[in-house]
Amino acid sequence: MRVLMSGFGTVGQGFAEVLMLRRDFLKERYGKDVNIVCAMDSSSYVADPSGLCPGELLERKKKTGKVGTKGYQDPLKVMESVEYDLLVEVSPTDIKTGGAGLKNIRYALESGKDVITVNKGPLALKFCELVALAKKNGCKFRFEGSVGGAMPIINLCRENLVGEKISSVRGILNGTCNFILSKMDNGQSFEQALKEAQQMGYAEADPTNDIEGYDSACKVVILANSLFKRSVTFSDVNITGISSITSEAISLAASNNMVIRLIGEVSHDKLEVSPRLVPRGHPLSISGTLNAAQVVTDLAGPITVSGRGAGRIETASAILSDLVSIMDDRKERKCQNP
Amino acid sequence: MRVLMSGFGTVGQGFAEVLMLRRDFLKERYGKDVNIVCAMDSSSYVADPSGLCPGELLERKKKTGKVGTKGYQDPLKVMESVEYDLLVEVSPTDIKTGGAGLKNIRYALESGKDVITVNKGPLALKFCELVALAKKNGCKFRFEGSVGGAMPIINLCRENLVGEKISSVRGILNGTCNFILSKMDNGQSFEQALKEAQQMGYAEADPTNDIEGYDSACKVVILANSLFKRSVTFSDVNITGISSITSEAISLAASNNMVIRLIGEVSHDKLEVSPRLVPRGHPLSISGTLNAAQVVTDLAGPITVSGRGAGRIETASAILSDLVSIMDDRKERKCQNP
Repeated sequence: MRVLMSGFGTVGQGFAEVLMLRRDFLKERYGKDVNIVCAMDSSSYVADPSGLCPGELLERKKKTGKVGTKGYQDPLKVMESVEYDLLVEVSPTDIKTGGAGLKNIRYALESGKDVITVNKGPLALKFCELVALAKKNGCKFRFEGSVGGAMPIINLCRENLVGEKISSVRGILNGTCNFILSKMDNGQSFEQALKEAQQMGYAEADPTNDIEGYDSACKVVILANSLFKRSVTFSDVNITGISSITSEAISLAASNNMVIRLIGEVSHDKLEVSPRLVPRGHPLSISGTLNAAQVVTDLAGPITVSGRGAGRIETASAILSDLVSIMDDRKERKCQNP
Repeated sequence: MRVLMSGFGTVGQGFAEVLMLRRDFLKERYGKDVNIVCAMDSSSYVADPSGLCPGELLERKKKTGKVGTKGYQDPLKVMESVEYDLLVEVSPTDIKTGGAGLKNIRYALESGKDVITVNKGPLALKFCELVALAKKNGCKFRFEGSVGGAMPIINLCRENLVGEKISSVRGILNGTCNFILSKMDNGQSFEQALKEAQQMGYAEADPTNDIEGYDSACKVVILANSLFKRSVTFSDVNITGISSITSEAISLAASNNMVIRLIGEVSHDKLEVSPRLVPRGHPLSISGTLNAAQVVTDLAGPITVSGRGAGRIETASAILSDLVSIMDDRKERKCQNP
């Protein structure tokens, strides 16, 4: 299995580490190595048909700021020059145009390659086009890590709950907002909580994307298109963020044994991000930076899953789960346990 | 796919309903029917190689109290007389001897048949023997519904988290205890809460099995053997139930923003059921009859899943997920989506 990596930032580096940690596991399960044959970042690339050492890539990136040894003009030219089976697309998210990630994914699918991405931009903007392209070319296209990081919501629905009829998914899809709201539960003002989130590295200097609900809305779009076969885009989501939530509102909720959480909701006819009252003790009343999603099904009832919504290794673990799922689907497994 | 059902109580009837509801889904996914070719309960059986109508089975059971039209002496003689591919074992749990369920499962595996069960008795007593028997005979052996009903904990670890190293699983594995503790959070005494649980049908007249932690301990054994490849049995579990928890303890916890929950914990060297303090807002602080389990992994971090731990259709949905998993593994799928 030959992997081309486009993007070598936090998540890309995490995935290189994960490939080192799971070399033996993959070899044992599939009887073959998973090799990175090419790695690109925004300004450099390096390729070797016999496989690059992930440790060397990490070291060069750390020392020089570049993953590769050569410069390039056109990433598609680089991709064209390499023989690979799977694109792992982890370049920076651009939710306005889809950025380089969109071009790279399109190109790989058009070339008949499987794709794993955690890049929300291309998914929030061009989901249906990309899925159709994958289908047309017989490619696998996976994106577990794009919604909720390590939280296995998409593959849970795709695999474990495939026999269920899902009527809705509601979830905490942004850990930064949940951190801020949890701090407000403990008596902080919105401003104090936001400042702490920024100091902890959870929120960016310009926190708009998180606190106004735009990041959650991207994930809602991905869930709507992938789990409900809808054909929606970012601009279809009704979005209310958390910036106008007052300490008084939090106190009033608490006196009724409730908390306020920013909830993204998707169903066949709903597409919304908004602050909601959640009873304490409800699976969606969790605190801290965790993400959570509740899937309402016709037979099993409500199933909730939670996990870390971000983090280098955590998000890379979602790429690993997609990789395993693709290799299982490709029936590359040597043997099956009973 | 020819199914032999042993047991036609609540869960068995639920599974018959689920098969009716998912006839089209299964036909479309695998290009073949899933037929019940034989159904047994404690005193009767009925068989038809061309498939029995689940609706008729349900109606006869309702009207006559028996699923079948004929009596039998030895269930194994009945099983011997039927051609089938899969045993669905849902007869009543006997956690002292394993009961008829253990004999039926053994016999099916020895005959090279796949087995799905939700019967905790055989699993808590003879797990390793049964798994070895399945392996030896090339059979699939699945038991998702035996731990936490509809909560997909075993298949989550087996499928989505297969690339993770799991260091521990901690969970709320008994909905009756969680209902009682949640009511105590709201100010009821243990005795009041237990009485309400009995009135609601959550607790039995003799509630020992639930409140002393024995039911949770069975599930801990199943998780230890299946997820940690341990070889333990019911008597290896350190068990403390909830019957001695006082309202004062609950109040003291609440004043520290904590709740008390009955937690089963499994790791490579731990096997325990005991009441624990859980911070409010933690994924295991949930209220009501839900079950929850937190899997601690090396890459993804903590992943928690929750769902309904009991119920006719809910538990049957877990059998459906095992059925789908077995049919996928048997590579009986007609086609794969990208």
